[in-house]
Amino acid sequence: MSEHPRSDLIAADTHGTRTHTCGDLRPENSGEEVVLKGWVDTRRDLGGLVFIDLRDRHGLTQIVFSSQMNEEAYDIAGKLRSEDVISIRGTVQDRSDSAKNDSLPTGHIEVSVDDICVLNTSETTPFVVTAHDDRRVEANEDLRLKHRYLDLRRPELQKNLALRHRLYQTTRRFFDEHDFLEIETPVLTKSTPEGARDFLVPSRMHPGRFYALPQSPQTYKQLLMVGGLDRYVQITKCFRDEALRADRQLEFTQIDVEMTFATEETIYDLMEGLMAALWRDIKDVELQTPFPRMPYREALETYGSDKPDVRFDLKLNDVSDVFAECGFRVFESIVDSGGKIIAIRVPGEGDRGRSAMDRLEDHVTKDIGAAGLIYFKLPSDGSGIQQNVSENALPTEYVEQAVEQVGAETGDLVLVLAGDAPTVYKQSGHLRLHVAKELDLVPEPGEGDDQFLWITDFPLVEHDEEEDRYVALHHPFTSPHPDDLDKLDDAPDEARARGYDLVLNGNEIGGGSIRIHQRHIQEKMFDVLGIGKEEAQDRFGFLLDAFRYGAPPHGGIAFGLDRLVMLLAGANSLRDVIAFPMTQSAQEPMVKSPDWVDPQQLKELHIRLELPDDVEPPQRTHSRLAS
Amino acid sequence: MSEHPRSDLIAADTHGTRTHTCGDLRPENSGEEVVLKGWVDTRRDLGGLVFIDLRDRHGLTQIVFSSQMNEEAYDIAGKLRSEDVISIRGTVQDRSDSAKNDSLPTGHIEVSVDDICVLNTSETTPFVVTAHDDRRVEANEDLRLKHRYLDLRRPELQKNLALRHRLYQTTRRFFDEHDFLEIETPVLTKSTPEGARDFLVPSRMHPGRFYALPQSPQTYKQLLMVGGLDRYVQITKCFRDEALRADRQLEFTQIDVEMTFATEETIYDLMEGLMAALWRDIKDVELQTPFPRMPYREALETYGSDKPDVRFDLKLNDVSDVFAECGFRVFESIVDSGGKIIAIRVPGEGDRGRSAMDRLEDHVTKDIGAAGLIYFKLPSDGSGIQQNVSENALPTEYVEQAVEQVGAETGDLVLVLAGDAPTVYKQSGHLRLHVAKELDLVPEPGEGDDQFLWITDFPLVEHDEEEDRYVALHHPFTSPHPDDLDKLDDAPDEARARGYDLVLNGNEIGGGSIRIHQRHIQEKMFDVLGIGKEEAQDRFGFLLDAFRYGAPPHGGIAFGLDRLVMLLAGANSLRDVIAFPMTQSAQEPMVKSPDWVDPQQLKELHIRLELPDDVEPPQRTHSRLAS
Repeated sequence: MSEHPRSDLIAADTHGTRTHTCGDLRPENSGEEVVLKGWVDTRRDLGGLVFIDLRDRHGLTQIVFSSQMNEEAYDIAGKLRSEDVISIRGTVQDRSDSAKNDSLPTGHIEVSVDDICVLNTSETTPFVVTAHDDRRVEANEDLRLKHRYLDLRRPELQKNLALRHRLYQTTRRFFDEHDFLEIETPVLTKSTPEGARDFLVPSRMHPGRFYALPQSPQTYKQLLMVGGLDRYVQITKCFRDEALRADRQLEFTQIDVEMTFATEETIYDLMEGLMAALWRDIKDVELQTPFPRMPYREALETYGSDKPDVRFDLKLNDVSDVFAECGFRVFESIVDSGGKIIAIRVPGEGDRGRSAMDRLEDHVTKDIGAAGLIYFKLPSDGSGIQQNVSENALPTEYVEQAVEQVGAETGDLVLVLAGDAPTVYKQSGHLRLHVAKELDLVPEPGEGDDQFLWITDFPLVEHDEEEDRYVALHHPFTSPHPDDLDKLDDAPDEARARGYDLVLNGNEIGGGSIRIHQRHIQEKMFDVLGIGKEEAQDRFGFLLDAFRYGAPPHGGIAFGLDRLVMLLAGANSLRDVIAFPMTQSAQEPMVKSPDWVDPQQLKELHIRLELPDDVEPPQRTHSRLAS
Repeated sequence: MSEHPRSDLIAADTHGTRTHTCGDLRPENSGEEVVLKGWVDTRRDLGGLVFIDLRDRHGLTQIVFSSQMNEEAYDIAGKLRSEDVISIRGTVQDRSDSAKNDSLPTGHIEVSVDDICVLNTSETTPFVVTAHDDRRVEANEDLRLKHRYLDLRRPELQKNLALRHRLYQTTRRFFDEHDFLEIETPVLTKSTPEGARDFLVPSRMHPGRFYALPQSPQTYKQLLMVGGLDRYVQITKCFRDEALRADRQLEFTQIDVEMTFATEETIYDLMEGLMAALWRDIKDVELQTPFPRMPYREALETYGSDKPDVRFDLKLNDVSDVFAECGFRVFESIVDSGGKIIAIRVPGEGDRGRSAMDRLEDHVTKDIGAAGLIYFKLPSDGSGIQQNVSENALPTEYVEQAVEQVGAETGDLVLVLAGDAPTVYKQSGHLRLHVAKELDLVPEPGEGDDQFLWITDFPLVEHDEEEDRYVALHHPFTSPHPDDLDKLDDAPDEARARGYDLVLNGNEIGGGSIRIHQRHIQEKMFDVLGIGKEEAQDRFGFLLDAFRYGAPPHGGIAFGLDRLVMLLAGANSLRDVIAFPMTQSAQEPMVKSPDWVDPQQLKELHIRLELPDDVEPPQRTHSRLAS
């Protein structure tokens, strides 16, 4: 056995249960004998006294060891280091006025220690762990993830996880009050087609077959409605084998909801109630309901996005008509071929210098991927329009019309992109966001008023150019708008869906739909998506069968819980609201997953590796550890 | 499109939101206009009137169509069949006294229908679905699982799922009130060694490596404690690739708990509080706490089980001393070699006939696997002891001593097993349960008083004869008893663990331990289990590392939620408390999982099938369905 360093300090805990946490004590506790347990955050030695900030999840409490009070305890205290774990018994006393710390809830008291038990010692940590923000040294994220148990001691992460806990509680209570049942759906299931890759789990008992981890419990929750469960909610893990981004993990948590006899209005009303409850409980803010709604087309054409951030203006303006016959060949040919010319008025930026405009052009061509940026400056000295295309090519009269149409005034800047719709709308949306960030129009995470928005009237399907067929915009179970049923045959991409997304500050936080509940419409939908009868029966026979036997109308929604917590916490990354996140390379560097396994395990699963030439498996076998 | 049968009946819902559920209406609603939606449970036609029991999750309401009131609605009603889904608008009216049904909460009213919308029709269901127990026809379970959405309409299953929902709510509120944080741990992780097989998930991004689904979040919850999260709870799915039994599924749900600075007493006290809260909220019963405790050894020697059902007596008695020198060679040699002779007194069964005793002997040898059963009958006519071994072989004087020691009286039966300990204890425990069931001493599920019991002082490890090494009785993270640390070197199987199980009516519903939190003890434990330094570092390096940096004392427990719900609901099978259970052959017959997958998927995962000769994969490929 390799003994712990300084293990001679460690002693059995003779103090019993703690009487308070490190965040509890106040001046009214003065004179009480207390037991506290926690981590040594910082230590200061001061002529016969040792001061320690003792830390736990609830806060910091200053404890004082005096050589006069208990020399043995004082001696031990002198040997303590950061992150040692101790239990102390002592007496609460008021601090002198000069020693009071108003920034800590416990800052008006301290505990004079009678006795100490060192419960465990700590080696020097690989990075500094402390509740004192001013002392924190930034360490690289990989190191933090490798020692996540140390990073988790930071009050900021603990605060986020506590907020997440509060969100679970409020969410579940809300749904309970509205007669929903929390019901668990299987994790080992068959693939549901959400468009992403499935994680597969080989079956040992059924050679050659695989379970799949759910991308969402979509079909199961619909079957619960067919089963008469009426109202379902579940906070559940979902899985998508996709490249990781800052706002996505391989496994993510979803608030999953489904209701029988629901219409769009039922869903909007209830979910606005949920958001109001969350904002009330967590941010102490009363949200104004109902939330505004915007059709998908308007969002795309006004904000260049299906998740517009409406906290600032910089709207898109269609100036195609102005330039339809302006003589500038680039514009004319785009308008001729059905494309769009989009202008954004940027107030107060008419004096931008050449290099700033060059950087913007660079961003437009390199990051946004547009062919080029055309702009008109209206300098604040009133010297008239400056344009980056010569007046010969693009006559000023047309530019003046466009400037007037977008409402630009002296001192403003007008940015113009042109191209095929909907591409140019999306590019303009990116440009809008980029400029807004440049101009500090986008509040920092956690700052500013939160703006909710329902996006409605999504198209049912869109045409996938690469595969030359239609794919569902949400998923194949979304009901077409009843007025557009006849479009399914000839122009399915013109049919509207009964789908909706909830957008918060430019982030999609949830989405759902009223579902198809009639067999012949579901069959029609599969047909539109190019899924033959046989494949449909093979993959979704259970759902088509279920629709034979009195399937009720139903609809639902799902929220991305991780992102919701991130936005509520004002965090910058999903990794700051997940206890054990993965890195962007889909690894968990602490336990080191994924990992190689014993070849015997694979044999039992009826599979073997088929590795690229440059990958060599290590040799290892594992023992069984428990009975 | 293949239209639904009777689809001409289907109409858009013009009634708006329902005003009440089918379980809400009472005589005080009389005269109100209401909208109800639900399933046609039963229909009766009665001279110009059609009566329908309309069903939803909340109950049944009788609705009446009259040809005089609305002839069109009446005509439609006449065409309705069981499981059609309808919306009705009508007026609540009192039933005449003779028509009142006291067994239904809505039985004193009915709704006279003004208008009906048929929302969907149903074909004839593969088995009868109705809320009326008296009409239910038993269908085979496979058929029910295949059409689970129909079986789920049964009030009994819906009641179980509602109870399960209530258990989630109470559990989470309880832990919230005690300052626990609900924290999610990863599902895609590295294998934790709980002794069962892991489910593996091939990694696409890391060829040849696998994630594993957690058998429990054991190490993660310990790391949360090292991370200072103080008190953790999670209701979470766990996975074990083992043969399915009636009381086990491949995926199961666990209430997972861990606490920093916990001792056994902290855990017992809090968990008794949880059980009391559950029994109060769900069964309206006040449990008596604290629960009794029994050391493992006593449980084994008195009840032949580590999860004794203490609701009835039939205790085990060690009569080895009595027979140590009785002349009966079988007994003598067993006692000589350190084995045990165990007697059970069965009151009032001294007159059992020959054939009943033969059946019991059969059970003992064939089902329990003991070498044989010896018994002594004390007939109620006082005619003296009858024994199934001749008096020559086993002299009556010894039998009389044994009978006296176990307290048997005239009219009783004494059953005796002999063999190596602990085998003979376990066999006697099975015999005890078998006899108790024969004698109707075991209350039916949901009946009788619930008996909780803590089992304590488990051995730390047991010797695995097959592999000739020690394996952990709970798991390798369980702390040895501090007084037994010195036994780890020479006699590890004599060391006690700081582990505990909670037993309810003979079912283990939870188990846990105070954990090891010191690196050198954890290393020692791995050493005892025959895990070399390298393997330990490879598999558990993260935990050993974490213990370097101020790991606090901690402990926890986990409850099997499915079983807990089953016991609370008085259900006979786990499948009655899980929405979408698997069959015993690890299949879900509704969606048909596990299933074959597209070979392209396997290629991307860097694996290929290695099938037994008699298994042939089908050819199929799948399309992508959503954007």
